[in-house]
Amino acid sequence: MIMSRIETAPDQAQGDLTERLLAGLPAEAVLTDPDVTAAYANDMASFCPAGAPAVVVLPRTVEEVQHVMRTATELRVPVVPQGARTGLSGGANASDGCIVLSLTKMDRILEINPVDRIAVVEPGVINATLSRAVNELGLYYPPDPSSWEMCTIGGNIGTASGGLCCVKYGVTAEYVLGLDVVLADGRLMTTGRRTAKGVAGYDLTRLFVGSEGSLGIVVRAVLALKPQPPQQLVLAAEFASAAAACDAVCRIMAGGHVPSLLELMDRTTVKAVNDLAHMGLPETTEALLLAAFDTPDPAPDLAAVGALCEAAGATQVVPADDAAESELLLQARRLSLTALEAVRGVTMIDDVCVPRSRLGDLIEGVERIADKHQLTIGVVAHAGDGNTHPTVCFDAADADESRRARESFDEIMALGLELGGTITGEHGVGVLKKEWLAREIGPVGIEMQRAIKQAFDPLGLLNPGKLF
Amino acid sequence: MIMSRIETAPDQAQGDLTERLLAGLPAEAVLTDPDVTAAYANDMASFCPAGAPAVVVLPRTVEEVQHVMRTATELRVPVVPQGARTGLSGGANASDGCIVLSLTKMDRILEINPVDRIAVVEPGVINATLSRAVNELGLYYPPDPSSWEMCTIGGNIGTASGGLCCVKYGVTAEYVLGLDVVLADGRLMTTGRRTAKGVAGYDLTRLFVGSEGSLGIVVRAVLALKPQPPQQLVLAAEFASAAAACDAVCRIMAGGHVPSLLELMDRTTVKAVNDLAHMGLPETTEALLLAAFDTPDPAPDLAAVGALCEAAGATQVVPADDAAESELLLQARRLSLTALEAVRGVTMIDDVCVPRSRLGDLIEGVERIADKHQLTIGVVAHAGDGNTHPTVCFDAADADESRRARESFDEIMALGLELGGTITGEHGVGVLKKEWLAREIGPVGIEMQRAIKQAFDPLGLLNPGKLF
Repeated sequence: MIMSRIETAPDQAQGDLTERLLAGLPAEAVLTDPDVTAAYANDMASFCPAGAPAVVVLPRTVEEVQHVMRTATELRVPVVPQGARTGLSGGANASDGCIVLSLTKMDRILEINPVDRIAVVEPGVINATLSRAVNELGLYYPPDPSSWEMCTIGGNIGTASGGLCCVKYGVTAEYVLGLDVVLADGRLMTTGRRTAKGVAGYDLTRLFVGSEGSLGIVVRAVLALKPQPPQQLVLAAEFASAAAACDAVCRIMAGGHVPSLLELMDRTTVKAVNDLAHMGLPETTEALLLAAFDTPDPAPDLAAVGALCEAAGATQVVPADDAAESELLLQARRLSLTALEAVRGVTMIDDVCVPRSRLGDLIEGVERIADKHQLTIGVVAHAGDGNTHPTVCFDAADADESRRARESFDEIMALGLELGGTITGEHGVGVLKKEWLAREIGPVGIEMQRAIKQAFDPLGLLNPGKLF
Repeated sequence: MIMSRIETAPDQAQGDLTERLLAGLPAEAVLTDPDVTAAYANDMASFCPAGAPAVVVLPRTVEEVQHVMRTATELRVPVVPQGARTGLSGGANASDGCIVLSLTKMDRILEINPVDRIAVVEPGVINATLSRAVNELGLYYPPDPSSWEMCTIGGNIGTASGGLCCVKYGVTAEYVLGLDVVLADGRLMTTGRRTAKGVAGYDLTRLFVGSEGSLGIVVRAVLALKPQPPQQLVLAAEFASAAAACDAVCRIMAGGHVPSLLELMDRTTVKAVNDLAHMGLPETTEALLLAAFDTPDPAPDLAAVGALCEAAGATQVVPADDAAESELLLQARRLSLTALEAVRGVTMIDDVCVPRSRLGDLIEGVERIADKHQLTIGVVAHAGDGNTHPTVCFDAADADESRRARESFDEIMALGLELGGTITGEHGVGVLKKEWLAREIGPVGIEMQRAIKQAFDPLGLLNPGKLF
């Protein structure tokens, strides 16, 4: 319930809000038909409540975003910023009576500069669109969440997205140099820089990355780019136990290797992929490890990593000879989530990141949790980062199975914290994990996080009910 | 003047403060002799006022730091945190009547983990000590400010230090995963993580990096490490103009190369080094460029970069054959600041970072400013980052020359901003550039920076008078 509207009849309030928004936005940018706005209620997370937006706005300019925020502040209406709604934590879910602020129409690439190695973009640019545009100039924008063909850069910034590349290239946060942000009251603030380095004042840029739209609206971003690396070459290794595969991961990282990808699929995931796609992976495979290198000469690293896998007990090591074979080996990984979804119809994807030395303990613990709750839980992991996605498969029509799914999901986070990890490596907190954030960072941490929220958004209008 | 002490006689107040501090600190950790405490008044910046500390404390434990901060809060005494005082912006300068909180005795390396690629350290660990300790395990802690043999990790975190390595490896900020921080009121807060990835809540870790001790006291840090790369191989290229050298830098970066070092010395610097060390650099050299690669096989990159230098008009290109020759080529760069100091006795080192495509304009502009003020200003630059250190040489005993030095210093920052750059790439704001911070980030930015300061330090006790 919005405080300032308690005294006003809902229809009247809605009319006022729409009228005020239309004073600074074209008609086609203001959607009020409930059948239409309902489509903007959710992101892709399970188990996250969502309300009915009062209105959806689709601004195309910074000025229009400023108008939306000024209107929201005047009328005390909450605002939920959205990208492509591919998030997995409910961070973009609407609240009742809110303005959904979709940034998808602000989708221009404003500049790509190969000397400065930067791109300047609007928030609605699709990750894949940017990636391809910079590739054409010999450049590389590394962050590659699984949803990269659909998700927006603004959404990536809001959730500090990761991907397969992170083990070598890091997460979205490391590629955001500067931002233009519309604050809750509609004022425009510029943070950061377009230079390679810069330490003038507190790092507000980083504060906005991963803030899930709760501190301001990102309307422009200066992104760092890398030179396009050579095509990566992949090696697949099969293991008779997850523990052996995790041992191989530890040996590879302790050995000083810098893979461009180091992914692990557990027995459950391998079986799900086999069932879906008949890929002929051996039934005896208890874990599959995929490592890749994108250096000019990956052969020595691949050979060394192959030997480390064998030393850790790999039952088979298959290095790709070329890019095409590499793609083939990666197919199994790419199909993992689809395959796990097919098991019981719905999945709930966890995102626990542990120190990579504890990866084996995490996977063993997840097996225990799956047994206890009589559930199928497949683990796909960005193993090189210790970032696991235990994926709980369940039938949403079965209330008891759904309850067990939710319980096991929480137990996996508890286990992650026990192992010195975090409840979220790359998906964010959103609605899904807000009770868990407090558990991870403790009361002093929460108090200081709230103080920052208060400093930027004293009226609490920006994406309320998320994070805390 | 400290508000709460206005009513108290200074000696009495000093006595109270010392007594309260001694309740939680051993006697040898509390220094009050003015001859001794005066030695803690300054860092290495020129033109920065400093006050006389009331007391210097040298805690060895987190609990002792908490006691200091609780005492400071109770008595409303400002606290100036210090590392090795090698800073160049006055950020560690004492204010009158303050507690200087030196973290130099908290100097233990608590953990180095080759699988997780992290180190856990106390803030007083010397950069070089950590670097050597991790090297022994095949690991690499990249940040390498010039003062690395003396400066502390805590100081590096406070100022978000850079160095020669940044063009490939980035700045200190990119290596800080998590922190333990004692807040102004003495409470302990943990930020971040010890995992490779993590996005639970706002990124408070990054907020503290570069905050110059104004938000809290870092008492422990989890640092990311890289595998130790091969020894780098250096190439030197001489140019008949700075513009040609800057053109070479642009070609190298646009060409997709990833040098481990890309440094530029202008004519003034080359001459100063020649005068000091008789290195036999040709008198005709108007600019010297040093590039290095630390890949397993640096030869192809060195050859390509040599060709790009020649295409840009290099008069001579000298690739090193081995590590010893590489070290020799780097000698000139390492001597630069000492050589420039010898010119007029004192230097004032600026730290302007511009988009690397504007490097030539910056150097040309600095020449103009030097001519106008009839001063010697040498430019040493981390060229690959566009981070320049225009170094104003002056005789501190000459009032007019000192005035001109200060004016030219400011004009260089104005030029940097004009070129789309920042007033500080790696040295920080401190006292030296606080008027300039406002100019760079604007009124809204300053307001939000102050709001964050207010959230963490409502009484304004932490390093007052810095940054804003």
